[in-house]
Amino acid sequence: MQQAFPITAKHNVLRAEAGSKSPNAHPLKIAVLFSGGEAPGGHNVLVGLLDALQEIHPQSRLFGFLNGSEGLLSGQSKHLLREEITLVRNQGGFELIGSGRKKIETKAEFVQALRGVQELDLDGLVIVGGDDSNTNAAMLAEYFSKEKCKTCVIGVPKTIDGDVKNPYVATPFGFDTACKVYSELIGNLAKDALTTRKYTHFIRLMGRSASHIALECALSTQPNCTLIGEEVAAANKTLKQIGEEVTQLVMKRGEAGKNYGVILIPEGLVEFIPEMKLLIEELNRLVAEQSTISVTEVLPQLSKKSASCYSALPKTIQEELLLNRDSHGNVHVSSIETELLLIELVRMNVASRQKKFQGNFTPMHHFFGYEGRGSYPSNFDCNYCTALGKAAAHMIDQRLSGYLCAIHDLAQAPTEWQLFAIPLPRLMHRELRKGKMTSVVRKTLVDLSGSAFQNFQAKRANWSIEDHYLFPGPMQFYGDPCLTDCGPRSISLSR
Amino acid sequence: MQQAFPITAKHNVLRAEAGSKSPNAHPLKIAVLFSGGEAPGGHNVLVGLLDALQEIHPQSRLFGFLNGSEGLLSGQSKHLLREEITLVRNQGGFELIGSGRKKIETKAEFVQALRGVQELDLDGLVIVGGDDSNTNAAMLAEYFSKEKCKTCVIGVPKTIDGDVKNPYVATPFGFDTACKVYSELIGNLAKDALTTRKYTHFIRLMGRSASHIALECALSTQPNCTLIGEEVAAANKTLKQIGEEVTQLVMKRGEAGKNYGVILIPEGLVEFIPEMKLLIEELNRLVAEQSTISVTEVLPQLSKKSASCYSALPKTIQEELLLNRDSHGNVHVSSIETELLLIELVRMNVASRQKKFQGNFTPMHHFFGYEGRGSYPSNFDCNYCTALGKAAAHMIDQRLSGYLCAIHDLAQAPTEWQLFAIPLPRLMHRELRKGKMTSVVRKTLVDLSGSAFQNFQAKRANWSIEDHYLFPGPMQFYGDPCLTDCGPRSISLSR
Repeated sequence: MQQAFPITAKHNVLRAEAGSKSPNAHPLKIAVLFSGGEAPGGHNVLVGLLDALQEIHPQSRLFGFLNGSEGLLSGQSKHLLREEITLVRNQGGFELIGSGRKKIETKAEFVQALRGVQELDLDGLVIVGGDDSNTNAAMLAEYFSKEKCKTCVIGVPKTIDGDVKNPYVATPFGFDTACKVYSELIGNLAKDALTTRKYTHFIRLMGRSASHIALECALSTQPNCTLIGEEVAAANKTLKQIGEEVTQLVMKRGEAGKNYGVILIPEGLVEFIPEMKLLIEELNRLVAEQSTISVTEVLPQLSKKSASCYSALPKTIQEELLLNRDSHGNVHVSSIETELLLIELVRMNVASRQKKFQGNFTPMHHFFGYEGRGSYPSNFDCNYCTALGKAAAHMIDQRLSGYLCAIHDLAQAPTEWQLFAIPLPRLMHRELRKGKMTSVVRKTLVDLSGSAFQNFQAKRANWSIEDHYLFPGPMQFYGDPCLTDCGPRSISLSR
Repeated sequence: MQQAFPITAKHNVLRAEAGSKSPNAHPLKIAVLFSGGEAPGGHNVLVGLLDALQEIHPQSRLFGFLNGSEGLLSGQSKHLLREEITLVRNQGGFELIGSGRKKIETKAEFVQALRGVQELDLDGLVIVGGDDSNTNAAMLAEYFSKEKCKTCVIGVPKTIDGDVKNPYVATPFGFDTACKVYSELIGNLAKDALTTRKYTHFIRLMGRSASHIALECALSTQPNCTLIGEEVAAANKTLKQIGEEVTQLVMKRGEAGKNYGVILIPEGLVEFIPEMKLLIEELNRLVAEQSTISVTEVLPQLSKKSASCYSALPKTIQEELLLNRDSHGNVHVSSIETELLLIELVRMNVASRQKKFQGNFTPMHHFFGYEGRGSYPSNFDCNYCTALGKAAAHMIDQRLSGYLCAIHDLAQAPTEWQLFAIPLPRLMHRELRKGKMTSVVRKTLVDLSGSAFQNFQAKRANWSIEDHYLFPGPMQFYGDPCLTDCGPRSISLSR
């Protein structure tokens, strides 16, 4: 990291002291931009920024770059006034200034970005985003420092997926809310399953590769089965084995008179199944070479292992793998309806053992994703985002650049929260990107030795046949703080 | 009705007077059963029943027949104690006594039911259910009266679908909660659409035939388009026309730079499209005669009109119509994924006009159903169900039989609610069932001249291209009563 970030990699982790005073008596000018998919609470980062800026100096001003980095590059920004910001306080969405997915990559783009912050004469730029966006923040901070530009760059950890999580950052914002929305729905389905006693709900949950969301929702709702991608990879499981395990569960429950159940599936599961990963790599190569290719044409061109894996898939999934492509022309892994794949596998397994199985298997499939991203933020995320915004403003006031805002002791009341500034290079590692080793903020997977997974692992056998569903209900904003203000369970378990 | 219900059809609508006293000084024995799909609030009917019973006489007792009518026929019941009932107060589900779908139809079953209530020496039987269950309640009341059995039978209107709705009954219970859960999710998707500006969400909503749920959710969230089955039928629209209308909307929005949108589809839509209704009737005949039949075999056997309708369907839907059967062996209409059907139609339309359309069409599909049934009840449904339970107990205390509980002025505070007893035959009409004219409680469709639809119709043009989304957020139980205690919009609009 020292080589890639000669200036900012030297920085130390800093902790804010209570009662420390602003070193500046002059007004600050800060701009903020949102990057990537929305996460509930983003607007409260603006609230926190403006609150702190005006505490520092009443003439300080806050700007927003429109539609993410695009606004920074094209110089499109908006002076954010108190009246506007008050209207979006505690609201979901990012629409006050929009978001974007543009990365700043070329030399010309860095020059443009420099011009963008200089034109506004900014003291600081706050980038609200996930792993890629914070990688960009780190690069901009280093570049601005090198160019002797006064603009400090601060990152704010955002993503519902929960994969910006490390010894320094307990959780990105938005994760708590999304999990609460999904847990409400999972609990409702469990309640329905208990009463009707006839449906097995297969629920796929958004969250990109990592299974953080599935794990958090499992702790909140105690379903009969939760697949964790990281565990599947560690145990080198095949799709067939996973199908068999779920079938065993369905059959055992059926034999106990329980023709119902709740099963959680992380969106990224498929990527963690070693044989599926290999198959997808081979398919990517084939579809790149042959733009239209049929199931029968594909088979002889696959390796023996992949051909056997592909043949075992239900026909609809075989076709889907060839037809759905992402923006790079690759197999669109996250659009694979894994819940339907598992249902098909269980159906085939059960049918092949019809004589033995006395129960009924009536599956229902669900995907919960965008519903969680677009929600009003939980009280936790409201408080957390306001605190992150305030922290970012104070860090810029202290002339810090190339840091990520981090808040510790999140399981305590907000008055006890501790603010840290983490040098972004500390969160980075080298990774192969487009064939080149590159320094990027590390996306974190579920830690199988961590307290959240360990807690889940210790209890899940109990939840599988006996029913221990929890019904979290809709997120509450008023009432008993125990009910309204708690953050993610994975945080309180790691205390 | 006079012929079918010689005793109970003579009854008049009765209104409870404030301060009226119990005529009895002796304890009452009442049993209750749940019938059909669960609806949030059912457990509070038990709370209301027990509260009122013990007000009438402290030694009164409440029983629950287990798993609906099955418990009544097999004599399986449970004495419900205060401690148990307190645990389920304001909780979702029906699991304390379970529910069932068994109807009481044969002479032997009526005799068994009579024995069931006599064995417990019941003063009253409360049947909590929808149209079919209340038809059963009317028949049992008439039969018990004829047999000089003292057990009074009272119906309580339940169903999230909202189709037990008439001049006497403003809404069945559960409808409010289900619509609030769906509206939370629709609002969240709209928020996500506004920020990401790239997805068009096609959302199918549970609700059987009638479009009450879609209409209520439309009033609560103001999406860009809401299909109302009853309107489609009244205008005799074809599937092609509907597809064309949605395509026009998508294209107009795309031209306005809005490559996103929110479209609501009632589960029952397909049944209201005259040509689809005809097609399904013909397919039902064919699949009954030929248990396996392929798409190519079906085509020449259809009428010209149906063949043309069938040919225009996307291939996946053509196959689905032949494969999915309900428990009677018919085409499983409610399992048709109409959201996928519409997406396919729009995709085909847009593709055929590729030159003209400059926007992007990226559809996302959703189905919301069981999530709403299994929810914690809204404050409105909690209060409403408690009131319905109390009403049922008092009606039995007054020796009324063959009535449905109804509460008027539901848009006012609960202290202003007025209680009515509606003779069940008033809600019935003659209908062809299994080839025989039968008296049944009428399932009510959306009234196109009613205030809810009229209000929607007056505003929807405004919502189609401009965005006027509302974001109801998660149901709240504590806080400002304006936020927590309001019932359905379709009720407040009809004041």
